Amino acid sequence: MANPVKTAISRLYPDRILVRGYNLVEMAGRYSFGDTFYLLITGELPTGHEGDLLEAMMVMSVEHSLNAPSTHTARAVANCGVPLQSAVAAGISAIGEHHGGAGEACARLLQETLQESPDEDVKRMAAGLVAQFQAAGRRLPGFGHRFHDPDPRARRLLSLAQEWGIVGAHVALARAIEEALQASTGRSLPMNVDGAQAALLSDMGVDWHYAKSVFILGRSAGLVAHAVEEMTTGKPFRFIAPVQAEYIGPAERPLPSGTATIEAEEKNL
Amino acid sequence: MANPVKTAISRLYPDRILVRGYNLVEMAGRYSFGDTFYLLITGELPTGHEGDLLEAMMVMSVEHSLNAPSTHTARAVANCGVPLQSAVAAGISAIGEHHGGAGEACARLLQETLQESPDEDVKRMAAGLVAQFQAAGRRLPGFGHRFHDPDPRARRLLSLAQEWGIVGAHVALARAIEEALQASTGRSLPMNVDGAQAALLSDMGVDWHYAKSVFILGRSAGLVAHAVEEMTTGKPFRFIAPVQAEYIGPAERPLPSGTATIEAEEKNL
Amino acid sequence: MANPVKTAISRLYPDRILVRGYNLVEMAGRYSFGDTFYLLITGELPTGHEGDLLEAMMVMSVEHSLNAPSTHTARAVANCGVPLQSAVAAGISAIGEHHGGAGEACARLLQETLQESPDEDVKRMAAGLVAQFQAAGRRLPGFGHRFHDPDPRARRLLSLAQEWGIVGAHVALARAIEEALQASTGRSLPMNVDGAQAALLSDMGVDWHYAKSVFILGRSAGLVAHAVEEMTTGKPFRFIAPVQAEYIGPAERPLPSGTATIEAEEKNL
Amino acid sequence: MANPVKTAISRLYPDRILVRGYNLVEMAGRYSFGDTFYLLITGELPTGHEGDLLEAMMVMSVEHSLNAPSTHTARAVANCGVPLQSAVAAGISAIGEHHGGAGEACARLLQETLQESPDEDVKRMAAGLVAQFQAAGRRLPGFGHRFHDPDPRARRLLSLAQEWGIVGAHVALARAIEEALQASTGRSLPMNVDGAQAALLSDMGVDWHYAKSVFILGRSAGLVAHAVEEMTTGKPFRFIAPVQAEYIGPAERPLPSGTATIEAEEKNL
Repeated sequence: MANPVKTAISRLYPDRILVRGYNLVEMAGRYSFGDTFYLLITGELPTGHEGDLLEAMMVMSVEHSLNAPSTHTARAVANCGVPLQSAVAAGISAIGEHHGGAGEACARLLQETLQESPDEDVKRMAAGLVAQFQAAGRRLPGFGHRFHDPDPRARRLLSLAQEWGIVGAHVALARAIEEALQASTGRSLPMNVDGAQAALLSDMGVDWHYAKSVFILGRSAGLVAHAVEEMTTGKPFRFIAPVQAEYIGPAERPLPSGTATIEAEEKNL
Repeated sequence: MANPVKTAISRLYPDRILVRGYNLVEMAGRYSFGDTFYLLITGELPTGHEGDLLEAMMVMSVEHSLNAPSTHTARAVANCGVPLQSAVAAGISAIGEHHGGAGEACARLLQETLQESPDEDVKRMAAGLVAQFQAAGRRLPGFGHRFHDPDPRARRLLSLAQEWGIVGAHVALARAIEEALQASTGRSLPMNVDGAQAALLSDMGVDWHYAKSVFILGRSAGLVAHAVEEMTTGKPFRFIAPVQAEYIGPAERPLPSGTATIEAEEKNL
Repeated sequence: MANPVKTAISRLYPDRILVRGYNLVEMAGRYSFGDTFYLLITGELPTGHEGDLLEAMMVMSVEHSLNAPSTHTARAVANCGVPLQSAVAAGISAIGEHHGGAGEACARLLQETLQESPDEDVKRMAAGLVAQFQAAGRRLPGFGHRFHDPDPRARRLLSLAQEWGIVGAHVALARAIEEALQASTGRSLPMNVDGAQAALLSDMGVDWHYAKSVFILGRSAGLVAHAVEEMTTGKPFRFIAPVQAEYIGPAERPLPSGTATIEAEEKNL
Repeated sequence: MANPVKTAISRLYPDRILVRGYNLVEMAGRYSFGDTFYLLITGELPTGHEGDLLEAMMVMSVEHSLNAPSTHTARAVANCGVPLQSAVAAGISAIGEHHGGAGEACARLLQETLQESPDEDVKRMAAGLVAQFQAAGRRLPGFGHRFHDPDPRARRLLSLAQEWGIVGAHVALARAIEEALQASTGRSLPMNVDGAQAALLSDMGVDWHYAKSVFILGRSAGLVAHAVEEMTTGKPFRFIAPVQAEYIGPAERPLPSGTATIEAEEKNL
């Protein structure tokens, strides 16, 4: 009675699994998780550093400690005596319109604006958007941050994207919005991590319906760590307070990579 | 009233986010998502190819179409008019004892067996485990597969790990179990993807509590793709049948990497 | 750092739990679950049969077998080796805009329409709504049903409400919409169970934000039954098909209450 | 390919929905939600006050404010900009082994103990269980409470059940356990609400697999109230602290029922 679902994603055989036509078994070890995710959501493998940029976005999203409702929720549920997947699922279910959702809203805005009037001047478009949101008394999603000001994650992602040649019309529009916001409010409201990801995903050709997913995947890694830490060290049925976690891990330490600092790297761009 | 949570995972500052002491903002672009996940769940960055192997495991886990209850569930929920994170969360909540859970059970078994009697002969250990499970009328988790026989994903992961020098006592025990199962049942019941991941995670020093998480992270990528496909192409409130999906994507195609086939690569090991 | 949540719902003491000022311990056994739910969502105990009508709505919502995505999902998850609450939670997460969501949309429409122009003629309002939805190419939520035509649940709930004196302006508007739809489309599109619940909840003074909750609570009872049936009788990791379940329970049987049939009861109204 | 699910729960027709053979449409308004839930989980309608007792249990479970992780979680998720069902689902997913799970464990213990040795002396059984748990260093689930000492909900449910003639061998065993705990520890550790529900559900013939469900259903009513309160009054993306909620609702007030106090009622038993 139920008709079979039509899907363009994958096909199974006993000896192989095809994703968008490619054999997953052969991909593993040669293509990164970021490459594979790019294939899943755009239909094609990256031709440049798109997979690397997706991974950089995921890395940037893994942790925000108990300041993040997703992490707070996963930990509160993990404390109640449930299996790992339940805690992770509850944490993901908190990634809503007000938490990680700015990326989706921003990507949609950038993509629809550019699709509607591809030839318009980018500064005019930006001024129009800012005026429109101010008239409606709404904040433009993806700009400004209550804790990180400016958001170092946004700056770094944009810098990597420039290095890798993945910067296009959507980033240009987002930059123009930054300027229009500055002109209109007198305040600096630079892209936050959600805004930068939205602009960069758009420039990589990722449809806005997927924009939230990079945050979902990246954050899941942190949720796993918090859930297991809670399950193995937390007293059962205690109360999990948000925000004021006490850090008991290793002190700040330099990366072992021995490479130049980001500042030095960026100077060479 | 609620005491602050003690956590060794991360610490926030306005200009940086430390994970296990390292600055996440500097890690992005230099360390892969697999490296970062390894840091999250073991406390240290990889010294070899551990992060690459974690990524290979995630890549192998992304898709099993509507044959997987996680995917089937995510798609059924996505059809009901909910936001993306709800569909992904529901799919993850299906990764239970009988679906993706064999990896956790197998990793625990391997780790506890080796911890209890580190000096015992591996063949004796394996024979003991097989006898014990047969006496209890239970299947050993991580061996044999109803659809993939043998499981090409297991073979490939083990081959990559060998190439990368990540094969130790837990894989040896798992191999010995394969032989003991063959001797005892007369059937070939090789490691499936869950079993291979369990043994390899254990040889990388990952605690069994995290064993299921590689599958959770990898599969989430596929859940995202299916959820968005359903939300953008499926008629609302239709019935989502499992298993018999109709594939309408690209025909099988070779990877563009131009590298030698896996078979050729493996010959050179 | 996190300010305490302000709540008007409940307050705890070692020897009692106050809900909206009343002692829950004293309520149990004297007030029904429906009465208590009415107190929770309106702030006051029922003065008439409101609690009974909420219970009738919940009873009507408990089951729609595997034709309902919520039930299908709960059962698919229950099959994967998870605890009961995981299966129920996954099922509830499917109660979205396209499944059980028509009640919320309909209640909002009825409440906002009547609040905006309380003195307008109800037929004019109804004709306006129908014209507006037709112009937008959208279906009016809460009218017509793909399987039940007409929906016997709607008819029965409306009949009970009339008997209990809970029928007001929102039901009148919904009735006028039925007539306007008939006049405009030439088809009979009577209120379905979602539409009837939306109109009746509105006439009981329940804010539309809660409209979906009666279905959530009622359906959860059925989800529990299906999840446990699956956990105790289903082969682990099988495939759960929607719709075509095979019924193996008791044959149709009359209620033992020995009362007159509904038809006879209704004749006496 | 997927075989149809066999179910004894319900069957659909365009003009009626049969649950365990009875027409749901005729049941609504005549049978309570508690009666209907009893039918769902035991296969038969109550012959006495079983449905009333199930409702009393649900009423007792609706609220424990932000002291309950389920409520805390639902509220934290509701704050993130998600639909109602997501917040309720996340809250339910927290009802694990350490939160509301004692009822399941206690019901299983009571049922299995009585099934294994139905003719043994109840005091001997109780002493054996207490000794066995003490030897294992574990707490007996369902006895004692960290906040309510004694738990007024347990006392009231047991009193109602006695009034309604629903007290049998499982309550007797639970009473004997109370005495054995007192004798063994020197402390009073009376049944808490989980323990009382476990014993009473068992005496009503409800299988232990369903024991947690009464709490799930009852608590969902409170989760709905908290989720909507948060969605309509909470500032988006704030932090939700557990425990120390500030109550701003009505002051304590007597029930309008005008009946005698519980104490007076109970004197007449």
